[in-house]
Amino acid sequence: MDYGHMLPKEVRRLIREGKITSPTSGMCLGYAQANLVSLPNALAYDFLLFTQRNPKACPVLEVSAAGSRVLPYLAPDSDIALDIPKYRVYENGVMTGEYFKAGHLWREDLVSFLIGCSFSFEDALLEAKVPVRHIEEGRNVPMYNTSIPLVPAGVFHGNMVVSMRPVPRELVVRAVTVTAAMPRVHGAPVHIGDPAAIGIADMGKPDYGDSVTIHSNEVPVFWPCGVTPQAVVMRVKPEFVITHAPGHMFITDIKNAHLKE
Amino acid sequence: MDYGHMLPKEVRRLIREGKITSPTSGMCLGYAQANLVSLPNALAYDFLLFTQRNPKACPVLEVSAAGSRVLPYLAPDSDIALDIPKYRVYENGVMTGEYFKAGHLWREDLVSFLIGCSFSFEDALLEAKVPVRHIEEGRNVPMYNTSIPLVPAGVFHGNMVVSMRPVPRELVVRAVTVTAAMPRVHGAPVHIGDPAAIGIADMGKPDYGDSVTIHSNEVPVFWPCGVTPQAVVMRVKPEFVITHAPGHMFITDIKNAHLKE
Repeated sequence: MDYGHMLPKEVRRLIREGKITSPTSGMCLGYAQANLVSLPNALAYDFLLFTQRNPKACPVLEVSAAGSRVLPYLAPDSDIALDIPKYRVYENGVMTGEYFKAGHLWREDLVSFLIGCSFSFEDALLEAKVPVRHIEEGRNVPMYNTSIPLVPAGVFHGNMVVSMRPVPRELVVRAVTVTAAMPRVHGAPVHIGDPAAIGIADMGKPDYGDSVTIHSNEVPVFWPCGVTPQAVVMRVKPEFVITHAPGHMFITDIKNAHLKE
Repeated sequence: MDYGHMLPKEVRRLIREGKITSPTSGMCLGYAQANLVSLPNALAYDFLLFTQRNPKACPVLEVSAAGSRVLPYLAPDSDIALDIPKYRVYENGVMTGEYFKAGHLWREDLVSFLIGCSFSFEDALLEAKVPVRHIEEGRNVPMYNTSIPLVPAGVFHGNMVVSMRPVPRELVVRAVTVTAAMPRVHGAPVHIGDPAAIGIADMGKPDYGDSVTIHSNEVPVFWPCGVTPQAVVMRVKPEFVITHAPGHMFITDIKNAHLKE
């Protein structure tokens, strides 16, 4: 199946029918993909403020009403509890399960935050002839914890998580300018070239996702990653949280070019 | 005094000493200016969500801790209750006073929202040789209520307020591109040319600020205005709110060029 050129509603239907349970990188090219954090209402203000203070790592695309599984802006006919390929549940900071459906787990006090994902700009990179290695290799994007501090808000604090794409030396500037134009899905890279400078010890062992090949003429380029808010939420060990599984994103009906500034 | 080329901390000192009580347009060129809305904690989540859903009209630059008059990001040595030239107090939706200082009015439950102001991009327009009429004429910028609807959030809903600058026909494109590059202080215009199309009946009677001359070779250009959140808050008639007086902004220590995306 050519998921890259299908419409979001078609791919979401296949997801809801259980026919897609894989990472969504490369699907529905041109449409924004989003990270999910659904947490209890009591934490929603602190978390929304955290996203406001850290817009590069946490560019919020939509916030649901409490208890609602509907996203009027991003995908009005969707159900956020059913249309993501894989969910994670965390209880008191511990992952207690991965699920293909989360409808039976939903609670009336959950507020859902949809946060921009760098998968959204990968087709812009491909259009610009910048290779995207994890798509070429059929793997999930490599993601790493870093030493880059975030601005705290209320109970939330922590460091940035980044995604990495190896870019041929002569295309690094192009990769920066292409992605800088898309701030609602993380925008420009946060670091170029030296993993150790941002606290990454071993590129071969990503903290999330898969490792990918880096050729000798390539530079590792690091973008803020939407797994950041998950990592930050987990530090607080909330009683109950539902997220997407890393790489398994919510595919929205909004084209990247139409995302509100 | 050449306020245009003074540092923010110098101008804020003159404001605190009562030596400046006028609108701040044209002061501290290159530095971001901000609108103030301080409202009770009980309304803070709905209001923060409203700003997230309406980023063009309400680009949040900083949110204080509840009860705090300190803004660690925008101006760490400032007191938000003393360093604005003129404040307004609203009680149950009615303006009950204008004040040069608000320290004696502050409450422990107030959360302060600092929202980007289009004054911030006026020096970029001037640098690009786009005239700014209200600065030329020594007046406050004209601001108008419109029929442009905003996305509701919780108790907050309403229409956009815009600021207007007349731009010579051949410079309109330049005015758009210069301001589009500054989304944290409202960014690109929301409308060009036809006041009636956005519900403005009489350009000679602004709803806030002063009217300015429009020459025959000029087009009225409308930008989202930071008075919008004030207008929206007033519709809800909260028991107690402190804002800046229109045009009398908070001048931050952050250069426009350094505003976080």
